[in-house]
Amino acid sequence: MNMKRILVVNPICSTEFDEKDRSILSKAAPPGFEVYVVSLEYGPQTIESYYDDMLASPFVVKSILEGEKKGCNAAMINCFMDPGLKAAREVASIPVVGAGESAVMTAILIGDSFGIVDVGPEPISKNTPPPFIRELGLASRFAGIKGTGIPVHALLHDKGKVMSSLKEAANSLLRNGADVIVLGCTGLIGMAKELSEEIGVPVVDPAISALNMVVALVNMDLRQSRRSYMTPPPKIRKLPEGLDLKI
Amino acid sequence: MNMKRILVVNPICSTEFDEKDRSILSKAAPPGFEVYVVSLEYGPQTIESYYDDMLASPFVVKSILEGEKKGCNAAMINCFMDPGLKAAREVASIPVVGAGESAVMTAILIGDSFGIVDVGPEPISKNTPPPFIRELGLASRFAGIKGTGIPVHALLHDKGKVMSSLKEAANSLLRNGADVIVLGCTGLIGMAKELSEEIGVPVVDPAISALNMVVALVNMDLRQSRRSYMTPPPKIRKLPEGLDLKI
Amino acid sequence: MNMKRILVVNPICSTEFDEKDRSILSKAAPPGFEVYVVSLEYGPQTIESYYDDMLASPFVVKSILEGEKKGCNAAMINCFMDPGLKAAREVASIPVVGAGESAVMTAILIGDSFGIVDVGPEPISKNTPPPFIRELGLASRFAGIKGTGIPVHALLHDKGKVMSSLKEAANSLLRNGADVIVLGCTGLIGMAKELSEEIGVPVVDPAISALNMVVALVNMDLRQSRRSYMTPPPKIRKLPEGLDLKI
Amino acid sequence: MNMKRILVVNPICSTEFDEKDRSILSKAAPPGFEVYVVSLEYGPQTIESYYDDMLASPFVVKSILEGEKKGCNAAMINCFMDPGLKAAREVASIPVVGAGESAVMTAILIGDSFGIVDVGPEPISKNTPPPFIRELGLASRFAGIKGTGIPVHALLHDKGKVMSSLKEAANSLLRNGADVIVLGCTGLIGMAKELSEEIGVPVVDPAISALNMVVALVNMDLRQSRRSYMTPPPKIRKLPEGLDLKI
Amino acid sequence: MNMKRILVVNPICSTEFDEKDRSILSKAAPPGFEVYVVSLEYGPQTIESYYDDMLASPFVVKSILEGEKKGCNAAMINCFMDPGLKAAREVASIPVVGAGESAVMTAILIGDSFGIVDVGPEPISKNTPPPFIRELGLASRFAGIKGTGIPVHALLHDKGKVMSSLKEAANSLLRNGADVIVLGCTGLIGMAKELSEEIGVPVVDPAISALNMVVALVNMDLRQSRRSYMTPPPKIRKLPEGLDLKI
Amino acid sequence: MNMKRILVVNPICSTEFDEKDRSILSKAAPPGFEVYVVSLEYGPQTIESYYDDMLASPFVVKSILEGEKKGCNAAMINCFMDPGLKAAREVASIPVVGAGESAVMTAILIGDSFGIVDVGPEPISKNTPPPFIRELGLASRFAGIKGTGIPVHALLHDKGKVMSSLKEAANSLLRNGADVIVLGCTGLIGMAKELSEEIGVPVVDPAISALNMVVALVNMDLRQSRRSYMTPPPKIRKLPEGLDLKI
Repeated sequence: MNMKRILVVNPICSTEFDEKDRSILSKAAPPGFEVYVVSLEYGPQTIESYYDDMLASPFVVKSILEGEKKGCNAAMINCFMDPGLKAAREVASIPVVGAGESAVMTAILIGDSFGIVDVGPEPISKNTPPPFIRELGLASRFAGIKGTGIPVHALLHDKGKVMSSLKEAANSLLRNGADVIVLGCTGLIGMAKELSEEIGVPVVDPAISALNMVVALVNMDLRQSRRSYMTPPPKIRKLPEGLDLKI
Repeated sequence: MNMKRILVVNPICSTEFDEKDRSILSKAAPPGFEVYVVSLEYGPQTIESYYDDMLASPFVVKSILEGEKKGCNAAMINCFMDPGLKAAREVASIPVVGAGESAVMTAILIGDSFGIVDVGPEPISKNTPPPFIRELGLASRFAGIKGTGIPVHALLHDKGKVMSSLKEAANSLLRNGADVIVLGCTGLIGMAKELSEEIGVPVVDPAISALNMVVALVNMDLRQSRRSYMTPPPKIRKLPEGLDLKI
Repeated sequence: MNMKRILVVNPICSTEFDEKDRSILSKAAPPGFEVYVVSLEYGPQTIESYYDDMLASPFVVKSILEGEKKGCNAAMINCFMDPGLKAAREVASIPVVGAGESAVMTAILIGDSFGIVDVGPEPISKNTPPPFIRELGLASRFAGIKGTGIPVHALLHDKGKVMSSLKEAANSLLRNGADVIVLGCTGLIGMAKELSEEIGVPVVDPAISALNMVVALVNMDLRQSRRSYMTPPPKIRKLPEGLDLKI
Repeated sequence: MNMKRILVVNPICSTEFDEKDRSILSKAAPPGFEVYVVSLEYGPQTIESYYDDMLASPFVVKSILEGEKKGCNAAMINCFMDPGLKAAREVASIPVVGAGESAVMTAILIGDSFGIVDVGPEPISKNTPPPFIRELGLASRFAGIKGTGIPVHALLHDKGKVMSSLKEAANSLLRNGADVIVLGCTGLIGMAKELSEEIGVPVVDPAISALNMVVALVNMDLRQSRRSYMTPPPKIRKLPEGLDLKI
Repeated sequence: MNMKRILVVNPICSTEFDEKDRSILSKAAPPGFEVYVVSLEYGPQTIESYYDDMLASPFVVKSILEGEKKGCNAAMINCFMDPGLKAAREVASIPVVGAGESAVMTAILIGDSFGIVDVGPEPISKNTPPPFIRELGLASRFAGIKGTGIPVHALLHDKGKVMSSLKEAANSLLRNGADVIVLGCTGLIGMAKELSEEIGVPVVDPAISALNMVVALVNMDLRQSRRSYMTPPPKIRKLPEGLDLKI
Repeated sequence: MNMKRILVVNPICSTEFDEKDRSILSKAAPPGFEVYVVSLEYGPQTIESYYDDMLASPFVVKSILEGEKKGCNAAMINCFMDPGLKAAREVASIPVVGAGESAVMTAILIGDSFGIVDVGPEPISKNTPPPFIRELGLASRFAGIKGTGIPVHALLHDKGKVMSSLKEAANSLLRNGADVIVLGCTGLIGMAKELSEEIGVPVVDPAISALNMVVALVNMDLRQSRRSYMTPPPKIRKLPEGLDLKI
């Protein structure tokens, strides 16, 4: 069988998560698909702000363009903030999905309302839909976001503490009416099943969602509409070395 | 490889579409999955109204319960109106998706706004979101629905006329700002590619979307949340013979 | 005076509620109107799930078609879930309303935001708008739903316990900002006044709302638009005996 | 029978419409109800702007307070702009409805989307929801407003021209997807039936809607929630003679 | 420099707040602008209800028309309820803003979601968007309103108690997810800075917002669109002495 | 007078627009304010895609950080796409606004619904709200976007053709119900007045809006909430030379 290859872009300069992601996503890849996990030459160590998202984005797009040239059949941006997603969709010919968008889509396929348990430098708790949920147009299905205050870099350590704080956050969202829990960070890969068993509702893993959503697009031979993601016209784009994007 | 089986319920008493659906969906099924297409013992010949939807629904649910007992790993309701979807999700343990919901989800993964080209006994043209789009919470991404007035039973004949009327409807939606076109009837299976080439934007086939979305759920080991779709409590449910649903 | 007759369909196979409904709705019917309460030959004992809703729906529609033939001037579906409402509107020539939709309309005529106190097999508590509220397009006026966990069949017993649990649920919704309370089950008929006195805000009785809304439509000589509820075209509809719907 | 009396406030200083309104609304009043039509001592001749609405409002409230003292059981403000509605609901103990709000409620009880045909000094055409529709929270069911440019004072003359311009406006909204047409001015009282026959969809008369909605509230013994419409606290309110409102 | 003059209408008959407003707004006025604070000949002492809003409105409009004649370059209505705003925009040629609308606009320029801390005769607490927020179309950015129950007339006394109750209300909104706090009454002028320091998030002062927003409009030479705020056509408008509005 | 300085970032590598912007914005700056116009060392020549937006963003943020160090009191990003806005708000201590967001805010202060006339490589026409409008939460006030198909780099030439195509696009939006027209590109600076005179409705210039909005924030001593725009935590951020951002 001619394997189809999904490019998985870890949009960070750290390679710390690559091994785990490669291992889990390889197992999660459906027959006929293989994953190709890369991280960035440049970029932030983790993504926890719009600033990190912005710094990662051009390097994400660069990786996707390179992956496309190397014959990858599709790409997924492996971060809940979907850094570079729209730009990548404009310049790539292969389908591109983000983990955040994919996770939300998956959640509303299996339940009415969803809540997001999040990580990050500071605890947060919001009932109002954040910008990306409003942009998706899904404010009326959003049941809240609850952040544990665990920084992303700490996710690889002390899994017990992470799990117990996720459980607490998830239960708080369930009390608010969430029907499905979405993990708000791809660094939480592999924890959905255990959390789901703890809290008794489905839990969506964003990395695995993105993999499955982009595989679905490949299987359907669909890619982004050029009416939403027009090919950028040629023009002078003056960029420093190291950010030598060419389209 | 142990094949996973997707139950495809054609929610009509006619078997006219089964062969074509079996052939196309079998080819579309990813490696490791096979489809099992059934139509209904009872129900309407085609579904073109809430009335038809209602009459089909209990028999759809019956088919899904039977399919689950026979070992199907998931089920898709092969009609854009998603007859019986919510009830099936309550009583089935396997994941269940509908073609309408799946098609809309697919559309918003690849474009910003979508329009629906529809068939049915009378031509329609609406810019306002119909009830199921409001229920999905996706009114702000809806660019219109345009019905050709071709009855569903006529879809298997005169493909040329069907295609040209779809093209006209789709182009009218593109002028209104649609970025992706969704086929509004699973009887249009297999026509997306040609229509897409004609109009130059992605076209979503609802049957193939549903297949891929439910395969994704199986691959993710996810199913409907019991908080949205509670198991119905046992009680007297007096039903006529022929509608001998048991849960 | 030539009495106008409102068909009240109790969409359940049990006749347990008929007597009480007949008595209360007869008193509530405005001069010139009489109610004609029927329950179903087949269907669930009570409606507490989409599954029950689906099983009741065809028999509701059958009752309405029969009622129309017998000269009823309008019909109300006496359940908060509005089983069969859309299909009935398609096939009936008389106006048809549902208790759920009518109650919500009534609530927003007298207050800004409304909360729903509900019954059913399990307690629930949600701040996010459920599907039917999103479908109505009224998410922005919804202040929450709070379920007491009392099963419908228990409503006819121990009124004191029912009232005290409704009061607790309603007060919780008031703290969340509800201005009007809607009873989420027609089995609670006759309890609105006492609950209203207890909590100090208007409480809407869905059965009595439906009666008054459909009387209003009769008085205005209005019925469902055929552009929303098209007459289903004739076609083969193969149905088991006992579900011998004819349109 | 002890008649219940509905106060109908024509919120204009002109008495021109009173006779016609009295005649039509008296016939439309259900058994047991009588209407008591008043116009204002002060105020604009017709209401075609926020400015007119504002000038009429205090005198509308004054009329309602007087009507309540005289024993009216409910009040309807007979203008599509609902002048003074919220203030009246605060200070009155009887239920108060407006013709605009009532007409929209009626429309969504019988169809999915509604369009408004309007009159006024200048022709208008809008697909975006106007402020009062957004305030109602019903933007997703709004299919457009189309103004004929006929001033309100001209409505009593040349009914033929009015009807033909309404028909043209309504047909334009139907092409946009409206399922029900709402007359956007109570000065069009009595024209719904003919227009409906001309265009083949239900047409809602706002004055008659308001009458029926407020009758429904009286029958249900419901009135505005004090949590939405708090009784204004006593304080100095310095008002000129002629606007001697006392609460 | 030729000073531009902003008319500040305190829409109450009391002059109690004028001095303080004049002093603070004069300091807040940018170079080249001066404020001209007026209160009303007639109207309520404070505005705490739709009734007060309605009584103040015509006198607000009168003041604005007079201010325009005297050469004011713009007007702001100095109350969070924006009494008379739409009517004033119709009849005035100068730009007119309201403090409520301006404060909300300011809030969403500096943060994602906002909560409103309010005063008034009774404590309130709502998570659902009130009518004016729905009318603005900003329901999805609204994080709640919390009322302290302090009457407006008491605001000039015991600043300590006011501040501590505002702080408590604001903190409750922050826990619900508000990113910015809006003071819900212009009587709270001058308290934003201290409250902001107490709670650590930006606090918007509605009076100062309105001043700055209307100054911005003057600087941009923009005023209300006549397509939203059509000039009212001439007609008989019969008004009592004391309410001798002329347009 | 101690002048306050507004940093104006032209987010492109071309300096072509700087002179014109400096001249017009200097005149538009209120007394006490001066503008400091910079363009980027790196970035695209013009911004017409998400890709361009992404490439510009880090250099925009860099400019803003430098401007802040040099004592600028606030910054505006002079492009309708608001490149780098959210990231800049996180890392800057001074208030930052974007031209797109500011223009929309200005539009809804002066009218009910707005339409956007746009430029760019291809003509577009959409009635559905684009992502940034949904993100703002303002879908219900959006009346359409109409693109002329004139590339940005051509805007400095043949003003007559630009004006006539803008006029045509604007009139089409007015027919759809727009009350205010927003120029969808800061390259159109200085054309609002003439277009407004041509079409008879207010036209919002995004560059001048952004200037006035950010001046308003400075005058109010307000800046972005840290709850929406958290300071990014320190971490390794590996960046190429030329993109040597330091926070």
